[in-house]
Amino acid sequence: MADSPNCDLTSLSPLQLFEKVTEQGEKVRALKAGKAPKDEIDAAVRRLLSLKLSYKTTTGQDYQAGLPPKDLVLINNGTTKEEDEDLVDPWNVQTSNAKGVDYDKLIVRFGSSKIDTDLINRIERATGQKPHHFLRRGIFFSHRDMDQVLDAYENKKPFYLYTGRGPSSQAMHVGHLIPFLFTKWLQEVFDVPLVIQLTDDEKYLWKDMTIEKAHEYARENVKDIIACGFDINKTFIFSDLDYLGTSAGFYKNIVKVQKHVTFNQVKGIFGFTDSDCIGKISFPAIQAAPSFSSSFPQIFNGKENIQCLIPCAIDQDPYFRMTRDVAPRIGQPKPALLHSVFFPALQGAQTKMSASDPNSSIFLTDTPKQIKTKINKHAFSGGRDTIEEHRKYGGNCDVDVSFMYLTFFLEDDDRLEQLKQAYTSGELLTGELKKVLIETMQPLVAAHQERRKQVTDEIVMQFMTPRKLAFEY
Amino acid sequence: MADSPNCDLTSLSPLQLFEKVTEQGEKVRALKAGKAPKDEIDAAVRRLLSLKLSYKTTTGQDYQAGLPPKDLVLINNGTTKEEDEDLVDPWNVQTSNAKGVDYDKLIVRFGSSKIDTDLINRIERATGQKPHHFLRRGIFFSHRDMDQVLDAYENKKPFYLYTGRGPSSQAMHVGHLIPFLFTKWLQEVFDVPLVIQLTDDEKYLWKDMTIEKAHEYARENVKDIIACGFDINKTFIFSDLDYLGTSAGFYKNIVKVQKHVTFNQVKGIFGFTDSDCIGKISFPAIQAAPSFSSSFPQIFNGKENIQCLIPCAIDQDPYFRMTRDVAPRIGQPKPALLHSVFFPALQGAQTKMSASDPNSSIFLTDTPKQIKTKINKHAFSGGRDTIEEHRKYGGNCDVDVSFMYLTFFLEDDDRLEQLKQAYTSGELLTGELKKVLIETMQPLVAAHQERRKQVTDEIVMQFMTPRKLAFEY
Repeated sequence: MADSPNCDLTSLSPLQLFEKVTEQGEKVRALKAGKAPKDEIDAAVRRLLSLKLSYKTTTGQDYQAGLPPKDLVLINNGTTKEEDEDLVDPWNVQTSNAKGVDYDKLIVRFGSSKIDTDLINRIERATGQKPHHFLRRGIFFSHRDMDQVLDAYENKKPFYLYTGRGPSSQAMHVGHLIPFLFTKWLQEVFDVPLVIQLTDDEKYLWKDMTIEKAHEYARENVKDIIACGFDINKTFIFSDLDYLGTSAGFYKNIVKVQKHVTFNQVKGIFGFTDSDCIGKISFPAIQAAPSFSSSFPQIFNGKENIQCLIPCAIDQDPYFRMTRDVAPRIGQPKPALLHSVFFPALQGAQTKMSASDPNSSIFLTDTPKQIKTKINKHAFSGGRDTIEEHRKYGGNCDVDVSFMYLTFFLEDDDRLEQLKQAYTSGELLTGELKKVLIETMQPLVAAHQERRKQVTDEIVMQFMTPRKLAFEY
Repeated sequence: MADSPNCDLTSLSPLQLFEKVTEQGEKVRALKAGKAPKDEIDAAVRRLLSLKLSYKTTTGQDYQAGLPPKDLVLINNGTTKEEDEDLVDPWNVQTSNAKGVDYDKLIVRFGSSKIDTDLINRIERATGQKPHHFLRRGIFFSHRDMDQVLDAYENKKPFYLYTGRGPSSQAMHVGHLIPFLFTKWLQEVFDVPLVIQLTDDEKYLWKDMTIEKAHEYARENVKDIIACGFDINKTFIFSDLDYLGTSAGFYKNIVKVQKHVTFNQVKGIFGFTDSDCIGKISFPAIQAAPSFSSSFPQIFNGKENIQCLIPCAIDQDPYFRMTRDVAPRIGQPKPALLHSVFFPALQGAQTKMSASDPNSSIFLTDTPKQIKTKINKHAFSGGRDTIEEHRKYGGNCDVDVSFMYLTFFLEDDDRLEQLKQAYTSGELLTGELKKVLIETMQPLVAAHQERRKQVTDEIVMQFMTPRKLAFEY
């Protein structure tokens, strides 16, 4: 930020201040080591103390070397990752633990807050609805500022939902549905508008894919998203490649974010390097901008500064930590977040499902037979090697992928608990548990396919037309 | 480009190939120095030879260490600039020579071609018009591929003109008119459409300025541009902040360019650093995109791959060298260029005029009295210290700013030549030369102001509405 024309300290973000203090500390050390004249050292020390004071005033925390401000802990991007740490960023999820990523550790590392019983109870009181099983079962497990969203909601202050998808291939898998199913529930119980971003530009930039292909995937994916049951009067779905050329409000917010984020920052947050293309480097601003209601002048009737709530998988958090850092500096409210765990691959919870490996996932296009075969053949089992051992020692639900899938898709709490007991005690065999999963997934996928068939091109066009959504501000 | 999914050598640009050869050469040296196994060294040498062959096939030149391909010689950005070299990039023009920048050296450094008598004669033959005095007097002195544009024109193949302006303050100065006056002439004699970009987003990113202010300046500047006399049926003027939200074709080209340019490249071309904001880093793609006719689907009736010709001051060349490097890789024709010299400040030709210093320039808003005072008080004189010496030794037109201004604005060749003779011989005094300049500039600026008054908001709106331009493709 040395060349920023606007360099007084009050305009700096916590992270920028943190960097300034660190830099000045190094300078003082270098001056002392180089035995510089006393008055020069004294001046540098005074500047250091003044920077530390600004840091404390801004963040409410004392400066601690090596410990960035809480809201902004950077992802380690593998390079400085501790041996036993999970790797989690928008392009990678990797853990050595068969139970999956250690989410409690992730909350500490990311500096977010746990969704605890108190918060779940508050959501129940505010909406008058039983909390979604994704909340009850810890599938949405972490948040940022959800309490503030509820404060405002209880005072009749509006908010809107924002979620999205990177359309990487024609077929989506059931894991892709998690944020959408939960967002649909939030839209229903809070009765709020929703915007859904399809980052076809991102896919073009990251993959070996033409711009036309990326755009086509987005159009295809929209049908699966609509089939989740969103309210056509309260939902706007857009592809970046289309919408950027339709809304001056959107581009203005993008360029505002781009002015307030340096290459150093995206390097730290996303691990970009000098040989990355400039499209990747500036893309985070495009995922950030829909967090600001002024990106949608048509939808919100020109009203600005409406609070945004973003339900998403935790790997998307880096984008929104960056967004929250920038927001106050461009006069916008910080978006709030609800984070979900990853949906495991059939082969095990060490990584998330991948749309590029057909056997790692149950696709929304799979036939009942394909679903059966995939589960029987590929779903990692927490059972024992022989029936005798299984009966004697029982299975392990913590690593059994069929059981994990049931926690996502079997809504009946009592039934799920019974299955857990029976499997753990050895009463229920792996084959029987898989049968329950097959019988759960087959009708679920078939019903989705049925709803998808109803989604005509005209309905797609309606959802994708920028227009005022049915909501009073 | 290590992470590029599309890594076969044929898809690489000359500059990328150059970098690959250099890299591989270093690898071979390191292997030899480290006394690596013979087969490993041999493999690396084979790879080096194959890369050199690809380089030669692509560029038609032998690889020479330290000498990038001709079309792509990088600006030195001060860091590796030789002591006596001029500094020229989109943000700086600096020379120690009172005659101004050494343009012949610049042509060699930039790898462009000189506009010679042959080319000027060809333009005269092709258009049937006497060449503009900017051409006759070497004010537009350098080009890229203008001969190809003429080849195509003579074969009835269409082209379009693209120029632009960064709207940095409300008032423009007379130097800002140079590219516009010349572009207007080109539009007339070739009878072709024209797009004019106002980079209000760039100004917002670079300056301490709100987005609203940048946008307002753009709107104000449009009136001065229109007052140059462009054909309303053949000219589209746009502000980036407006047009990006109006045209999906424009954004698609931007993102295509952004995918094919790395941070390393913009660092080399523009001197960006890690602490620059990501908006600056990705901006070059926004100035590049109007070089491709598909950015204007409305204007060209959806027709793509129309040749573009860009008249601009030479400091804008880095943007278009980058554009020309990318163009073939995204299936677009390379834009051709016509480069002008810089317009000198009143204080001397060491630097170009600056809109931020009111005394460095004659502004289009200046009164006749202001023009008179500025010229008399500030125009650097090539005359002698005393009248006696002047009469005896004569003045120096090469460094006299009044004379330089007359070469730009006095159309009468014979009169200009007379003035030069008289001033050089000592017959004409500095005050008398200044008087000629004052009498030239006062009516010129007054006429501009008169035409500007005629530019109503409605006319502005017409110029700025994306629409089919009157031209057959």
